[in-house]
Amino acid sequence: MEKLENSTDCKETVSPLNNSGSVLNCTVSGHEAMGFVLVHAGAGYHSESKAKEYKHVCKRACQRAVDRLRAGGLALEAVTAALIELEDSPFTNAGTGSNLNLSGEIECDASIMDGKSLNYGAVGALSGIKNPVLVARRLLSETQKGKLSAGRIPPCFLVGKGAEQWAISHGIPACSTEKMTTKFSLSGYKRNKRKMELAEQVETKRRRQSCGHKKIGNIKLIEENDLGCLEPVGDIMVEGEENNSACLDTVGAVVVDREGNVAAAVSSGGLAMKHPGRVGQAAHYGCGCWAENARDVSLYSTAVSTSGSGEHLIRTMLARECSTSMQTENAHHALLEAMQNKFISSPFLAGEDCVLGGVIVLRCCTCGEAQRSEDIQTLLVEFLWSHTTESMCVGYMSAQDSKPRTHISRLPPGAVAGQSLAIEGGVCRLGTTSD
Amino acid sequence: MEKLENSTDCKETVSPLNNSGSVLNCTVSGHEAMGFVLVHAGAGYHSESKAKEYKHVCKRACQRAVDRLRAGGLALEAVTAALIELEDSPFTNAGTGSNLNLSGEIECDASIMDGKSLNYGAVGALSGIKNPVLVARRLLSETQKGKLSAGRIPPCFLVGKGAEQWAISHGIPACSTEKMTTKFSLSGYKRNKRKMELAEQVETKRRRQSCGHKKIGNIKLIEENDLGCLEPVGDIMVEGEENNSACLDTVGAVVVDREGNVAAAVSSGGLAMKHPGRVGQAAHYGCGCWAENARDVSLYSTAVSTSGSGEHLIRTMLARECSTSMQTENAHHALLEAMQNKFISSPFLAGEDCVLGGVIVLRCCTCGEAQRSEDIQTLLVEFLWSHTTESMCVGYMSAQDSKPRTHISRLPPGAVAGQSLAIEGGVCRLGTTSD
Repeated sequence: MEKLENSTDCKETVSPLNNSGSVLNCTVSGHEAMGFVLVHAGAGYHSESKAKEYKHVCKRACQRAVDRLRAGGLALEAVTAALIELEDSPFTNAGTGSNLNLSGEIECDASIMDGKSLNYGAVGALSGIKNPVLVARRLLSETQKGKLSAGRIPPCFLVGKGAEQWAISHGIPACSTEKMTTKFSLSGYKRNKRKMELAEQVETKRRRQSCGHKKIGNIKLIEENDLGCLEPVGDIMVEGEENNSACLDTVGAVVVDREGNVAAAVSSGGLAMKHPGRVGQAAHYGCGCWAENARDVSLYSTAVSTSGSGEHLIRTMLARECSTSMQTENAHHALLEAMQNKFISSPFLAGEDCVLGGVIVLRCCTCGEAQRSEDIQTLLVEFLWSHTTESMCVGYMSAQDSKPRTHISRLPPGAVAGQSLAIEGGVCRLGTTSD
Repeated sequence: MEKLENSTDCKETVSPLNNSGSVLNCTVSGHEAMGFVLVHAGAGYHSESKAKEYKHVCKRACQRAVDRLRAGGLALEAVTAALIELEDSPFTNAGTGSNLNLSGEIECDASIMDGKSLNYGAVGALSGIKNPVLVARRLLSETQKGKLSAGRIPPCFLVGKGAEQWAISHGIPACSTEKMTTKFSLSGYKRNKRKMELAEQVETKRRRQSCGHKKIGNIKLIEENDLGCLEPVGDIMVEGEENNSACLDTVGAVVVDREGNVAAAVSSGGLAMKHPGRVGQAAHYGCGCWAENARDVSLYSTAVSTSGSGEHLIRTMLARECSTSMQTENAHHALLEAMQNKFISSPFLAGEDCVLGGVIVLRCCTCGEAQRSEDIQTLLVEFLWSHTTESMCVGYMSAQDSKPRTHISRLPPGAVAGQSLAIEGGVCRLGTTSD
């Protein structure tokens, strides 16, 4: 393990696969650092004109988490604080400002995992609650209290109306759909609805024409023409329009605290125009987030949060796969291989030619010094992000830093979204006096 | 690989761990067999007096699956047919006869996975649909059709009211809660409600007394007395009452067809008296069922379906873990180790002293002959079940068998449910003329 304390060690690595490129950004902390946070505001498309807003919310989320860490909070508290800030932003597709579903309603997914206890809480298709992550967090806490009356096992995953009722009965603030809807999410909904209607009109016309032309044996020509007509309608999922900020996906965070505990969380308004009741990866165990403290000194603690096309992230169980892969020596190569082999080229997505998603990953281990001294606990933290989408907005900060850093990572010019990937990251050493 | 064709090769193995025992039951098929099915009617407690009913539904489910296989159906169709029969039985906790939740309503979870395409479909907290597995199956089929209008990705997991609406709009039969409620599920609900009220009264009394006695420093004595009082109230989850058939959990099936494709499915009414909106392992990817065709000849195809305490099965991701573990030489030892290390002693359930669940597992590979001849395809099928609950009811049948076999597996005398396990299984060779 390299000695980085009080020095900066930057390296650049380039992914050899699919024309993707990468840059390593480094941050270094000295003594008395009390933890580290890495957040994302979604993998998708972040226009230059909105970059300031995305970066700003990531900064605030980092600051909130670090405030908790500095006040003595552990990873679980800090990651929750970051998520609340990310959900409250009208620019992210989580909490306030979430995508509207087919019925024009907001249904949110969120989950949280504690690497120390390995406990987990999640909510799916949740309406009427301002901060879905708070419900996931409370489910996790209730699980830790043991059984309910008459030996009933407490739930770790609640959905829909039942989840909303449970949240309100546990004192979590409610919020009407109207208050959570922004002008961006509403204009996005109206635009997408028009697109769908147009696409369906074209489809109906295509069917009628195919049917009519079958008789004169000219099916192929007509179908090609009509598929051509469909193109200008555009995809709801992958477009990169200027005003389409609501199309960005999931937000999330990963944290390590002064004790080396990790935690991860994720929150999402889900796909634009999704069917009511659709639950994405943000509420799926192993798919939206993962956190696992090292069970012995030879292992790394890992925390992961994902973003992107929910169904792809579910079927590849990407959060857990990335976590598992991070136990090999080189973090950068480990994540690169996981994104390539377990996501883009995953046998679980064999029929897909466009696999859209992103992850933030944090891994840490106790450095040699800690084993020699009882007074100083030193943590080596490696933090990375990778995405197959056009861009991904991240922010990071150690409790020792005076301010957060943010970055919008983009695929290199010419790289094809859904088939290529970008990977970046950094290393920091946290030294702190133990209690 | 042993040659078992047209002969019976039985062996007995005993688990060295936790006083558990096992017996190997064998069935053998000759040429022209077109597949194999293994079903379960829940891991829980099956009273002797009801054994006949449980076995009968397992028989019917096997027969339905085999009918489909004989008619040329593939694994996915056969596993769906088995599940419909299991859901329709008033004795199982799935579909008709499901446990009622806290509000006296039925909310079902179900999922299905196709080992060939690795596609998956699931529903959670679904009311008002007679056969939840049909909705999961239809979600899977729709996924295979590609994108929806305007490039939207079709959902693989729907919950609650949205799932119900989607099902009805896709022509899947609706059914009122009243029609799906049986006298068993209703009497179980009333009994459990009384137990909960009593338990909560005792708890309130305990709190008051603890509070009162604090002043005279006698807290410990009072708490012990009150906890003693709680015992006769009984747990809703683990009791084994004569009439409490509705407390049994999840049903499921695993199938291999003539082409060697595997499929798995699972369906559950969930925990008795669960909170509305609670989703258990039956709707969780990787937790309720798993099916994965071998990607090359050196690997096994595997299919798994689970049953038991949903939260424990979720946090251990038991279906996928069992599937992954089945790639080693000895199927029996592989499953034994998975149940011991990935379930009973799982770090994800470190605080739990009673881990209740069961699995059925099927693995198969193409035998040597198939590689030498283009005309004969021979499949070696190993099928196993294991449980930490008092009992588990299973049935199995090859398409060559004249009738299904059923069995209620029980923990050996003296073994402690939730801490010990039973494991049993068999081997069969299927030979069939390829198309």
